[in-house]
Amino acid sequence: MNTSADHIYHTDTIIALATPAGSGAIGVIRLSGPQAVPVTNTIFRGKDLSKQKSHTIHFGTIRDGEIVIDEVLVSLFIAPSSYTKEDVVEISCHNSTFIIERILKLAMKHGARPAKPGEFTLRAFLNGGLDLSQAEAVADLIASNSQASHQMAMQQMRGGFSNELKNLREQLIHFASMIELELDFAEEDVEFANRDDLKALIYKINHVLQRLISSFEQGNVMKNGVPVVIAGKPNVGKSTLLNALLNEERAIVSEIAGTTRDTIEDEINIHGITFRFIDTAGIRTTADIVEAQGVERTYAKMKAAKLIIYLVDPEQARAEVEEQLEELEKLDIPFVTVVNKSDILSPQKQLEFAHFNPNFLSAKNKEGIDELKEEILRKVNLARINTDDVLVSNIRHLESLQKTSEALARVLENVDGSVTSDFLSMDIKQALYYLGEITGEVTTDDLLENIFSKFCIGK
Amino acid sequence: MNTSADHIYHTDTIIALATPAGSGAIGVIRLSGPQAVPVTNTIFRGKDLSKQKSHTIHFGTIRDGEIVIDEVLVSLFIAPSSYTKEDVVEISCHNSTFIIERILKLAMKHGARPAKPGEFTLRAFLNGGLDLSQAEAVADLIASNSQASHQMAMQQMRGGFSNELKNLREQLIHFASMIELELDFAEEDVEFANRDDLKALIYKINHVLQRLISSFEQGNVMKNGVPVVIAGKPNVGKSTLLNALLNEERAIVSEIAGTTRDTIEDEINIHGITFRFIDTAGIRTTADIVEAQGVERTYAKMKAAKLIIYLVDPEQARAEVEEQLEELEKLDIPFVTVVNKSDILSPQKQLEFAHFNPNFLSAKNKEGIDELKEEILRKVNLARINTDDVLVSNIRHLESLQKTSEALARVLENVDGSVTSDFLSMDIKQALYYLGEITGEVTTDDLLENIFSKFCIGK
Repeated sequence: MNTSADHIYHTDTIIALATPAGSGAIGVIRLSGPQAVPVTNTIFRGKDLSKQKSHTIHFGTIRDGEIVIDEVLVSLFIAPSSYTKEDVVEISCHNSTFIIERILKLAMKHGARPAKPGEFTLRAFLNGGLDLSQAEAVADLIASNSQASHQMAMQQMRGGFSNELKNLREQLIHFASMIELELDFAEEDVEFANRDDLKALIYKINHVLQRLISSFEQGNVMKNGVPVVIAGKPNVGKSTLLNALLNEERAIVSEIAGTTRDTIEDEINIHGITFRFIDTAGIRTTADIVEAQGVERTYAKMKAAKLIIYLVDPEQARAEVEEQLEELEKLDIPFVTVVNKSDILSPQKQLEFAHFNPNFLSAKNKEGIDELKEEILRKVNLARINTDDVLVSNIRHLESLQKTSEALARVLENVDGSVTSDFLSMDIKQALYYLGEITGEVTTDDLLENIFSKFCIGK
Repeated sequence: MNTSADHIYHTDTIIALATPAGSGAIGVIRLSGPQAVPVTNTIFRGKDLSKQKSHTIHFGTIRDGEIVIDEVLVSLFIAPSSYTKEDVVEISCHNSTFIIERILKLAMKHGARPAKPGEFTLRAFLNGGLDLSQAEAVADLIASNSQASHQMAMQQMRGGFSNELKNLREQLIHFASMIELELDFAEEDVEFANRDDLKALIYKINHVLQRLISSFEQGNVMKNGVPVVIAGKPNVGKSTLLNALLNEERAIVSEIAGTTRDTIEDEINIHGITFRFIDTAGIRTTADIVEAQGVERTYAKMKAAKLIIYLVDPEQARAEVEEQLEELEKLDIPFVTVVNKSDILSPQKQLEFAHFNPNFLSAKNKEGIDELKEEILRKVNLARINTDDVLVSNIRHLESLQKTSEALARVLENVDGSVTSDFLSMDIKQALYYLGEITGEVTTDDLLENIFSKFCIGK
């Protein structure tokens, strides 16, 4: 078990490519550790880097003996004014795999070693530059692909609930030490820790915990997307609608040449929130017994959705639509009724369908799409992303919050009873442990390994 | 037509992602132009960038109003101390597509415009930071994937033949102006340009041109790889041999985690030179008439090769091998005879084959592979990469060199004859034009468009 208060001095210097592999103009190689500057200095021809100030950039060449590997820019960050709080050097080179490989090998020959995934951020954490939940947010930030997931990660990286939890934890530590003191004076039956004050603090902590725990559902949906099913008879235009919803967003993306987004075909972004579309076989009336099983599967998928878009063909019989809507209502999931092909809809049918209060649109002609988007946002009730709301989106945090809450519940249960101080003390320590796990006051090697191994190399 | 001596002031500011798209820790966004610093200053919260020195780095946040988009490092390069010779800003952000897109859009909202492919390097050329052949070398450098192609590109980027050609061109310009002067005094029949000196200069230029032109074959092979065919009967172990040749190189590459090389399956790198393997159906004796056509295609491919590795099975009849070797010799391409499966080769067969002076190896057990590599290098006669040799590897340069040479040949042809000075002048001007095209003293918009449109965006 480590605590971030320990000073962990790394004697080795790590190196990795910090920019993505692939086609581009610039590659950035990052070194961190006590030898970052000397190692770079050995392979760099230009100014003497050991004599330069932090946050300065120097032009020169990287050489292997007399062979020029590349003309580069070297950026210096002198400890503690760096991401890792160690000396950091960034070598900005031409983005050729061959050059990057040569520079990495060369630096490794002179004493640097390849960084493990997330090792730069791990060092930032161990050296006190970030707490654990902030470090985790760095990975979330890089992975963020919507305004909502981005805002959550950014907020967490910039502090989020860390300070609030740290403050509450410190108050709880105070009580823990008071109760420890009681144990020392056990024979004298003194009470250093005021039980009413302790209860008041636990209520306060629990209030925060419950707020954070209950934010998880929304946080998770914002991070991972809102699962949506487009239901309806076959050939009613489900994929045309999906494309119509997708297209506008794509147009915006392709405006900026060079930032190819790895679009997942069935994810769309509406006003900063990601909607994840789940494919279904389409629903039919259950009259056909043979298809009953397929329909069952479709309903199972629909139950996992946060929203169902029920797409109606203008030729469909009113009775059939009515029947299917009744089925949908049983699922108790928000749904939007949409009548497609509004361009060929007869006035009579329009009147007939008006009863269901649907959105009329033409997926093919892209008419009524914006209105549908607004309706979708209203239905999932995530229309406003409040940037001041602190949301929990990390399942590890959720679990630690829940375990803290359980331990505190036991404290409350026992504080007025006949339970001795040492039992009380044990539960408070448990609560402190789980609370500390979130921000990293309490860590184990396994926990750190588990968190940072999921990072990319170079971060 | 432009000349680099013209000062072309760009009033607009360009922006692009300079690092590859994909998974990584850092993304670098680059701005260049008179508004690079003001635009960044508008969206950056931190120090006032307009008051900072060149080659300094500043930590802060990029904000859209009050919304924090990212915590970033901003690097400043103040004109003319930058790649483009304009003010350049590099924003180093977390490598999330979402963040990069937001920052690009935000900077574009405040006056930057998306850069076209190669536009940063085009500006560097137009502002006199690089000549044209150097600018082209930047693209070659990024694309370089072997020691040979890297060395050639690096040498060209750092000057290469540019200075030599520029110097010769200036001497030729001197003669051109003397001959122009003769035209002004045409009636007086004076000769300002000494014809013997002119001829001496043209001989000197032609000597350089011929050296460069004849270096193209080697340069091209070094840049694009040596085409090699592995021939032999089916199932003789061609792909096992290819894998054995590939494997060692791959092992070195995978040592360095994080630098995934986009390996093309059939390219291998031996001592810094790329060998490009051409797939063939395998050769058989032409006795089988039905297969004659397939064999013909194989031979056609073999003729395009610079080297043939002829792979023999230890069970093959000596007569058959002899017959095929005779066929190969007719092609007049260097070839290496290799007997595979040396582990199961009987001493009798070994004796039988010794006559062909082959390399014995076991592709499966990776025995004899190093010896084969040495043999391959010897055969293609590129064993030594002399880093001092200036090689032409760009077909555009080759063509300009050839056209220069042709124009100069006409000058030589006419200088002693009865041709008037104005014809002489015309051919010299032609030579100057083509010579100037190489380094960019002479450019047309089409030429520039053609060169820079092949660059990646952000370079």
